[in-house]
Amino acid sequence: MKHSVVFDTAVSPIMVETGTLLTEAARQAGIDIAQPCGGQGRCGRCAVQVMAGSVRQRSTLRLSPEDVAQGYALACQSVVEGDVTVRLLPQETLERHLTTDRVATAVSVPVGYDPLRDQPIRRLTLTLPPPSMDDQTDDWSRLQTAVRQQTGIEQLQISLPLLQQIGPVLRKGNWQVTAVIDANPQSPISNLPPRLIALTPGHTPADTPLWGAAIDIGTTTVSVWLVDLLTGEVKAQAAEYNRQIRRGEDVISRIIYASKGNGREELRQLVLESINTLLERVCQKATRDWQLEIGDSAPISNLQSPISILKATIAGNSTMMHLLLGIPAESIRLSPFVTAVNHIPPLTAREVGLAIHPEATVDCLPGVASYVGADISAGVLASGMADSEQVSLFMDIGTNGETVLGSQDWLVTCACSAGPAFEGAGVQHGMRATRGAIEEVWINGDTYEPTIRVIGDAPPRGFCGSGLISLLAEMFLTGIIDKGGHFNADRPTDRIRQGAHGWEYVVVWGNKGEGNGRTPTPDIAITHVDIDNLLRAKAAIYAGFTVLADAVGVPLEMVERVLIGGAFGKYINVEKAVEIGLLPDMPWENFTFLGNTAVLGAYYALLDEKQRARVADIASRMTYIELSADNSFYEAFTSALFLPHTDLSRFPSVAAIKSQTLTNL
Amino acid sequence: MKHSVVFDTAVSPIMVETGTLLTEAARQAGIDIAQPCGGQGRCGRCAVQVMAGSVRQRSTLRLSPEDVAQGYALACQSVVEGDVTVRLLPQETLERHLTTDRVATAVSVPVGYDPLRDQPIRRLTLTLPPPSMDDQTDDWSRLQTAVRQQTGIEQLQISLPLLQQIGPVLRKGNWQVTAVIDANPQSPISNLPPRLIALTPGHTPADTPLWGAAIDIGTTTVSVWLVDLLTGEVKAQAAEYNRQIRRGEDVISRIIYASKGNGREELRQLVLESINTLLERVCQKATRDWQLEIGDSAPISNLQSPISILKATIAGNSTMMHLLLGIPAESIRLSPFVTAVNHIPPLTAREVGLAIHPEATVDCLPGVASYVGADISAGVLASGMADSEQVSLFMDIGTNGETVLGSQDWLVTCACSAGPAFEGAGVQHGMRATRGAIEEVWINGDTYEPTIRVIGDAPPRGFCGSGLISLLAEMFLTGIIDKGGHFNADRPTDRIRQGAHGWEYVVVWGNKGEGNGRTPTPDIAITHVDIDNLLRAKAAIYAGFTVLADAVGVPLEMVERVLIGGAFGKYINVEKAVEIGLLPDMPWENFTFLGNTAVLGAYYALLDEKQRARVADIASRMTYIELSADNSFYEAFTSALFLPHTDLSRFPSVAAIKSQTLTNL
Repeated sequence: MKHSVVFDTAVSPIMVETGTLLTEAARQAGIDIAQPCGGQGRCGRCAVQVMAGSVRQRSTLRLSPEDVAQGYALACQSVVEGDVTVRLLPQETLERHLTTDRVATAVSVPVGYDPLRDQPIRRLTLTLPPPSMDDQTDDWSRLQTAVRQQTGIEQLQISLPLLQQIGPVLRKGNWQVTAVIDANPQSPISNLPPRLIALTPGHTPADTPLWGAAIDIGTTTVSVWLVDLLTGEVKAQAAEYNRQIRRGEDVISRIIYASKGNGREELRQLVLESINTLLERVCQKATRDWQLEIGDSAPISNLQSPISILKATIAGNSTMMHLLLGIPAESIRLSPFVTAVNHIPPLTAREVGLAIHPEATVDCLPGVASYVGADISAGVLASGMADSEQVSLFMDIGTNGETVLGSQDWLVTCACSAGPAFEGAGVQHGMRATRGAIEEVWINGDTYEPTIRVIGDAPPRGFCGSGLISLLAEMFLTGIIDKGGHFNADRPTDRIRQGAHGWEYVVVWGNKGEGNGRTPTPDIAITHVDIDNLLRAKAAIYAGFTVLADAVGVPLEMVERVLIGGAFGKYINVEKAVEIGLLPDMPWENFTFLGNTAVLGAYYALLDEKQRARVADIASRMTYIELSADNSFYEAFTSALFLPHTDLSRFPSVAAIKSQTLTNL
Repeated sequence: MKHSVVFDTAVSPIMVETGTLLTEAARQAGIDIAQPCGGQGRCGRCAVQVMAGSVRQRSTLRLSPEDVAQGYALACQSVVEGDVTVRLLPQETLERHLTTDRVATAVSVPVGYDPLRDQPIRRLTLTLPPPSMDDQTDDWSRLQTAVRQQTGIEQLQISLPLLQQIGPVLRKGNWQVTAVIDANPQSPISNLPPRLIALTPGHTPADTPLWGAAIDIGTTTVSVWLVDLLTGEVKAQAAEYNRQIRRGEDVISRIIYASKGNGREELRQLVLESINTLLERVCQKATRDWQLEIGDSAPISNLQSPISILKATIAGNSTMMHLLLGIPAESIRLSPFVTAVNHIPPLTAREVGLAIHPEATVDCLPGVASYVGADISAGVLASGMADSEQVSLFMDIGTNGETVLGSQDWLVTCACSAGPAFEGAGVQHGMRATRGAIEEVWINGDTYEPTIRVIGDAPPRGFCGSGLISLLAEMFLTGIIDKGGHFNADRPTDRIRQGAHGWEYVVVWGNKGEGNGRTPTPDIAITHVDIDNLLRAKAAIYAGFTVLADAVGVPLEMVERVLIGGAFGKYINVEKAVEIGLLPDMPWENFTFLGNTAVLGAYYALLDEKQRARVADIASRMTYIELSADNSFYEAFTSALFLPHTDLSRFPSVAAIKSQTLTNL
């Protein structure tokens, strides 16, 4: 039976079958309702108000009884059972402030880089003898002969779409053509013969760039680097939020979303949109830079479009890789937590759906396990820890919390499913590191009054990850909360109060908007529930370190370097992170922030087949420790649920500060 | 500017731009107008009548001034320049009488056939250890390991669509699965590693057939054999007209059609439709046969569908192969007459568009040159001439006229572009060998009255190829025409008369339909122009023999066997064909009719990699003689333009009959 659903922002009602979810109805009406939890009814961000008619609500978790009384419902949990009229609520919008400039990193071309020795993409200019009545050799044999004479390659492969093009291209170029070949050298990653990628009429000048792309697909952020394979230089960088975010903020939510209806294909298209948009952007940037350099005399052939990109190397966690390739990811989420594939065979852009040259090689880097993916293999490569005698601890604090401990001799790894609390999810006033996010907090130990620093020239709207770490540390050091995270309600300040979710500390007072025409804003507070979530997240990460160290019998104190990758890692205040027990207590100079190690590793693998082979080698020799099967993890986790830890001897510097603070009191 | 075009059989008028061809307008209106000459205005079969408005006619060749006065126009040559109303004329319909039964051939499985030794498709039943918390190996590695343990195959390849399936299939089968692999052995045709083709849950019983298909794409007829690779048996055969026929009856017309607008893709789709329909038909037939054998207890899994076919081997002339694969074919038609590709790499059914298993290997057999294609390489293999010490002449008299001369030691070949005159095109009352076609004619030497044999229980409608050969021989022997093909107008019969196109001989009197309510039928005659066309066709074929023999210095008399392949060849009357000088004059027992040698060769190549390698070897070592570059061809052609030949000493048996006939007179 069909019912009409009227959305207040839609042009016309739509008709849907009994049992259709409101989120699905909205999609059919062309309305995009964010589902950060993947449609599980956990996050509450898809709430709408049913103004007329009624829906059956599977779950009202996250809604108060008053909300429900007023007709509020979670769109992802509400099933249409009659004609309804629905009002959409203002949604959190993701500000795309992640500009190329903000993320641009200075990247050095590897010393001694030699494109002909190191990477397999070859551009050949060929002059073929034209056919005649005395030489009626077919076009493809003629081309193969020319390639063989210049390179010695015996059995060049060709795809059907290229076979369809060679005749016209050879004639358009009057038997002078430029061929691009993936030489597929004898590397451990491929036993495939050399392959023709592209054929264009005429001779391309030797100094024209030969374009490649290094790509990292993060759960939150997608990054693309445009690389000239001839020089090795990174010519442009760009990043933006992974457009899958509105269908789930963490990998589990995405896997759940992908397992329903057309979800898998929808997520695949969303991440492809993200990547393809970024590819367009890096090409525009490279063209612009190049025009600035050369002036308006720039020949049109040098204006870049993604179609000129002939190879892409991709890093990303295992879930992101599966979703990019349309591979079912459910087994990642369910015990015994296995991926469909860790070592993905070489693909073409046509197969994957990237908007680069359709025959371009797409090399998806190998992962280790369900929760330690290619981003970590690439990150370990980029960090250099696998080349060092020193024992290093490498962590990628992104949406997941992957950790690797080791040296050139051994590597152990785990993923602690910290959850996205430090990215603002599961925290009432949490948000991402965008404009209006509180990124640093200081609290006066006498008055309990806070001072804040906000990203951008904007009024504060919530806390981003670094702000939460900072706030937690300050509340602990000033005694607003105790080492168990419980509020000391007796402190003389009205900022500590009982709110709707129990005890909370108000960092920013809202206004009621009276009199002066301002929009009313809520108080920005951190609640007891938020603190619990944050403690669990940091305890999971720290417990990961402990388990790894225990597994190999190397005490954490023996770790000589802590290498931190990931976008979030970049903005962490080490002092505060140590104070809450998120990072191990060691001299600050032992910490190095590496930025996006995944895309850096992809860049190295793109440029150098030996590095590419090393990524495969690293992925194969990392020992993966499954924490959910490890009893010692629960013990370590429980011990780390305190600020900074039950065992204060592990945090001597924090113990010193704390005793000093106590003394001051 | 847009104009309305009203077709009398169409539901509503359509709007087209100024300059649109009537054939294109018809297509937009959903009407299919046959264009046997490919839209060149040569055949006249697309004539329509313009009832109102006017069109600009590029060419009115094939229309009489009276026709033009009555508004007749060639749809492929008429351009819309204003609103028009068009009446469609009854078109020749192709009766699909080519049933499986008619074409079915008894095929013997090669002696000693061993599927595991001879052909590369392998079906494996695998039982994998299920993953556990102690063994989190990814699905693809787990599957590769199982295959390696059973076969020793080290680096199995997989496509992205299969990667998307393996996880669910492994779990559905509860870790028991059946895998099909193309082992791609070290044959000269492929340096590709082994490849997974299919994965299904559960263990397929060992006696379930492993299906393959042998396919021949003729210009006129497409043939498909369904083969059980395990036993080598041909389980069903089917053939039908190539649906491209309505877009051109010969390869040149098709190439021209393909070069215009969307023609190439349209022709590709048409031949795919033909093949896919036949695949469906052979599967239904195999299922039916099997049910008859086993009874209704047949398990559903044994009901065949084309999706069960895991490999297809395809023969066809070079133009057919290019059109199947969407490869531009123009260079075949234009000097210096080269193909885009002779040796086509292995493809998958997904790429080609065949409706068999999408990952099935599609092996397009190699051709020699533009006009000597894979049908001839396969035909030479099937004929056995390349294994014999005897000198054989192999000819495939289909729409083209390809000839091969040679033995196990040497092979020379040529194509004489005879044109489709013997298939009824270019002859006023020519038609294909369908119901109503006159297939044999005898003429009384005294009365000049003919006796005819007609295919099927039907009134005569025209002449098919064997009928034309027969008629020509009889007219020559009875003196109705002289050795130059000119009419002896003085013979005392009203059947020889001056018609619209000059002298003609009436074989069947039509009726005016008066009185008895019959539909009026025209007289069926053969004209001077028709005879010229037939002489040119037979001269081209015979000249081909001469040039080949001269090229290797082997006189035609030394030929020990004449091997005739091709559908048309099957129905030829050797005596008559020798009498007109189409075939060389030698004892009848030296002639062997082999039927469709192309599909037979494809079948051998499908079953045996060694035979497949031999086809490649045959294609590579055939010396191709380009007749259009050969002056001696024109001489030989001119000499052969007579009945049977200028040099009667080449046709001693005909000379004997003729002198006898003259004596009788």
